[in-house]
Amino acid sequence: MSGNRWRFFAAVCAVVFVVGFASGEATFSDELAALEVGKNLPQISVDGNRFVNPEGETVMFRGLALVDPAVMQDRGKWDRDYFEKAASWNANVVRIAIHPSHWRRLGEDAYLKLVDQAVIWSAELGMYVIIDWHSIGNPLTDVYHRPMYITDRGETFRFWHTIAQRYKGNPAVPFFELWNEPTNRGGRMGRLPWSEYKAYMEELIFMIRAIDDKKIPMVAGFNFGYDLTDVKKDPISFPGVAYVAHPYPQKRPEPWVEDWEKDWGFVADKYPMMCTEFGFMSADGPGAHVPVIADETYGHAVIEYFEKKGISWTAWVFDAHWSPQLFSDWDYTPTAQGVVFKKYMEELNP
Amino acid sequence: MSGNRWRFFAAVCAVVFVVGFASGEATFSDELAALEVGKNLPQISVDGNRFVNPEGETVMFRGLALVDPAVMQDRGKWDRDYFEKAASWNANVVRIAIHPSHWRRLGEDAYLKLVDQAVIWSAELGMYVIIDWHSIGNPLTDVYHRPMYITDRGETFRFWHTIAQRYKGNPAVPFFELWNEPTNRGGRMGRLPWSEYKAYMEELIFMIRAIDDKKIPMVAGFNFGYDLTDVKKDPISFPGVAYVAHPYPQKRPEPWVEDWEKDWGFVADKYPMMCTEFGFMSADGPGAHVPVIADETYGHAVIEYFEKKGISWTAWVFDAHWSPQLFSDWDYTPTAQGVVFKKYMEELNP
Amino acid sequence: MSGNRWRFFAAVCAVVFVVGFASGEATFSDELAALEVGKNLPQISVDGNRFVNPEGETVMFRGLALVDPAVMQDRGKWDRDYFEKAASWNANVVRIAIHPSHWRRLGEDAYLKLVDQAVIWSAELGMYVIIDWHSIGNPLTDVYHRPMYITDRGETFRFWHTIAQRYKGNPAVPFFELWNEPTNRGGRMGRLPWSEYKAYMEELIFMIRAIDDKKIPMVAGFNFGYDLTDVKKDPISFPGVAYVAHPYPQKRPEPWVEDWEKDWGFVADKYPMMCTEFGFMSADGPGAHVPVIADETYGHAVIEYFEKKGISWTAWVFDAHWSPQLFSDWDYTPTAQGVVFKKYMEELNP
Ligand SMILES: [Mg+2]
Ligand SMILES: [Mg+2]
Ligand SMILES: [Mg+2]
Ligand SMILES: [Mg+2]
Ligand SMILES: [Mg+2]
Repeated sequence: MSGNRWRFFAAVCAVVFVVGFASGEATFSDELAALEVGKNLPQISVDGNRFVNPEGETVMFRGLALVDPAVMQDRGKWDRDYFEKAASWNANVVRIAIHPSHWRRLGEDAYLKLVDQAVIWSAELGMYVIIDWHSIGNPLTDVYHRPMYITDRGETFRFWHTIAQRYKGNPAVPFFELWNEPTNRGGRMGRLPWSEYKAYMEELIFMIRAIDDKKIPMVAGFNFGYDLTDVKKDPISFPGVAYVAHPYPQKRPEPWVEDWEKDWGFVADKYPMMCTEFGFMSADGPGAHVPVIADETYGHAVIEYFEKKGISWTAWVFDAHWSPQLFSDWDYTPTAQGVVFKKYMEELNP
Repeated sequence: MSGNRWRFFAAVCAVVFVVGFASGEATFSDELAALEVGKNLPQISVDGNRFVNPEGETVMFRGLALVDPAVMQDRGKWDRDYFEKAASWNANVVRIAIHPSHWRRLGEDAYLKLVDQAVIWSAELGMYVIIDWHSIGNPLTDVYHRPMYITDRGETFRFWHTIAQRYKGNPAVPFFELWNEPTNRGGRMGRLPWSEYKAYMEELIFMIRAIDDKKIPMVAGFNFGYDLTDVKKDPISFPGVAYVAHPYPQKRPEPWVEDWEKDWGFVADKYPMMCTEFGFMSADGPGAHVPVIADETYGHAVIEYFEKKGISWTAWVFDAHWSPQLFSDWDYTPTAQGVVFKKYMEELNP
Repeated sequence: MSGNRWRFFAAVCAVVFVVGFASGEATFSDELAALEVGKNLPQISVDGNRFVNPEGETVMFRGLALVDPAVMQDRGKWDRDYFEKAASWNANVVRIAIHPSHWRRLGEDAYLKLVDQAVIWSAELGMYVIIDWHSIGNPLTDVYHRPMYITDRGETFRFWHTIAQRYKGNPAVPFFELWNEPTNRGGRMGRLPWSEYKAYMEELIFMIRAIDDKKIPMVAGFNFGYDLTDVKKDPISFPGVAYVAHPYPQKRPEPWVEDWEKDWGFVADKYPMMCTEFGFMSADGPGAHVPVIADETYGHAVIEYFEKKGISWTAWVFDAHWSPQLFSDWDYTPTAQGVVFKKYMEELNP
């Protein structure tokens, strides 16, 4: 670029700035200023298989998977107190699950206000944020687990474009969990070749990185986010990506560890990993279902395995209704799994 | 699978069973129990180019294409009597045409109740059921013949996923007619290469077979379901599939047979076939239109050809309104074509 | 085709004709009769890099980009007077911008009535019509510039199918501008490879040409319709196509011409071109925004360049509200750019 050319572009930028604060920018740009809150939190990035701070020190995330903000709002329970309680359990990360159906129902503007609040409250309380596009099913055939999970490729691209524009440059939101739980239920939701799923995720990552090259996209495995075996031979073709597993107890038989290692844990030797859903409850608890039925043996085993492998985690789910619950009432009385995972956050997080 | 592993899965299955009848299954599985009715009907399968019963005996289907259940309900005419009349004409199969627009309008739950009734009434009356996704147009460009036929790939996958889950294991529903009438009107609806249409149908078949490997998918030809010439060099890559033609009289000039043989009839020498739409009426009848105008000569010619080739059939349409009509009033008085096709069902069906 | 075969088809055609005027055509054909108005205008076609009339004489189009008819109707300003004023400025072409969101909001039938009026009024006033599918964004990822531009592939095919059927054989509508402003904002709307965009446009062109082989599809460049550099090595694979550029002043630094030549102007040496949007205004005008801020220097330079290259044009925008405005009030008082471009139309158009 010649000097003249450069001066021209500088001049254009100056005009953009001036016009941007008058009326023009509001008319012809979708880019919103990053929220100022969150600047207090150190930028997280990927170094090898670790999440690191600006000093290059390893950061382990241990926290909580929260309920969809729209659902909390429907219940009249969407408030800062929910986040304060999460912080009081010593979580250093929270995961915001956004169902496509609620995203459409509220509309982008109304929903973003909720996400803004989640980011503001979390950042003020010193917790990082994972934004999770909470669909379940086959993204290639558009067969979904339930109607609430229905979306499509275009909506998914628009969601991530909007989220990336909104929270670009905001260090409180390091993690974009691109697609909660891809699954084809053994073919019953149609074919789901890894190569095509991977290509889809890479298209999303390309776009997100063009907007903000510091975001850390997180890619989940198949079988409802359980199985990452394809990563061995065919990993995502972008650097700085993390992988996700959801190792609920009944996906494999006790004592689990050998299966976990070959199904998804091996990935953590080479790439950063975060298990963004896992948890347990007794068979007679409210909402008990396969694959979440287990006891404390599982709770200790899974955290021990995470710690050994350097895998970050958010336990499912910081709620009294969705199962397996981490608390049993709105005094936030911990359930059996709540006791276990709360204790680990208290002991292991700084 | 080791003995230990096997015991683990058996235990999980037991839990699934228990939980399934409590609350869990209702929360985390889309699989509905197959309807019990229909178990009285022998399972139909494909052997070479024949439909056969469990004893391996050839079964010929000769029956009636019915009106969309949602339309019958709109008219206040959705009742068991409609099916009783079909049975009284000695049909051994009925075809349930489901328009995408009506499927969306009623919603999956409400529409499935109608299909359940259709299956129950048909099975009780000894008639098999074809479920037909009644779209017309180019499934690759999403240009459709009329607004009522508009759908898309995702909705089509979800429709067949839902239908296959609902009627799996139910021998009263052997036939899934995947896509009524693919056509690109000579290019005016955009390109429609057989290779891509075939790949699409194969994706649907893969999913359906993963749910129920006994279902018989039926694949229609181009030109509004008329032209199967591409099957000669490039048949569907799954076994046990049937092909569909809609040989309305004006698609080709009398005496037809030579054209039929090379346009679609040759397929019946190698694969099972069902002509799920055909029929005739006079040019001055209500709703007369190209390509359905003809007289009894056609009616006899087409049935004679079907019988010679071993092709099953459902005549279009068991209604007094949609054309060409099989009856002229709600006393079910047969029209000209009604007389012809009713007589063939009486003579040829057991 | 044998004599017998030919006679059969002739007979069928006769039946179609008769039935078409009774009830059948209304039931089974989407093809509407072309509007009779417009037959007064000579058919425009492509010869080399020129638009020509039936005598082979070059026709240069110099005219006006109009406001979306649905928006004009919302304002209570949709009337023949708007077109009379355009004609009084000596435009010989008008561009009808149809936003996908308005197309959906009004519905096809209601919107087509507006387009019919636009075509009738324009043709009566001796102006040709460009129909413009007015989306902005990445047609491959479905990320759009603003919600009003959201569409998808299926809707886009159906739009052009409907428009081509409606105006086939009507010489008043020679130009179909397929997709207003493709852009991926440097990757921030995801990948947009020319090869895939080109393939998409070619699918549309195939369909349109199958309906009416006289229509002239117009294909826009990347970067909001600015950049046609990919055409050099990989032009659209259909003859008779025109290219579009939108050379707003701040896309490149003054004195522009060298950049224009290599960014898009070179295309005009080989293919017909039409610049369907361009214009300027001062930084303090209402709605001023990058990239439209400039003065008369730009206005003269761009027209001089068009004339030198034989490029047709429609100035943006014949309105007092959208910017940059060509008039400043509903007495149609020309703005600064209005004065310039009106004078050129008066001097250069016959
Ligand atoms: Mg879509
Ligand atoms: Mg889950
Ligand atoms: Mg769609
Ligand atoms: Mg038909
Ligand atoms: Mg523009």
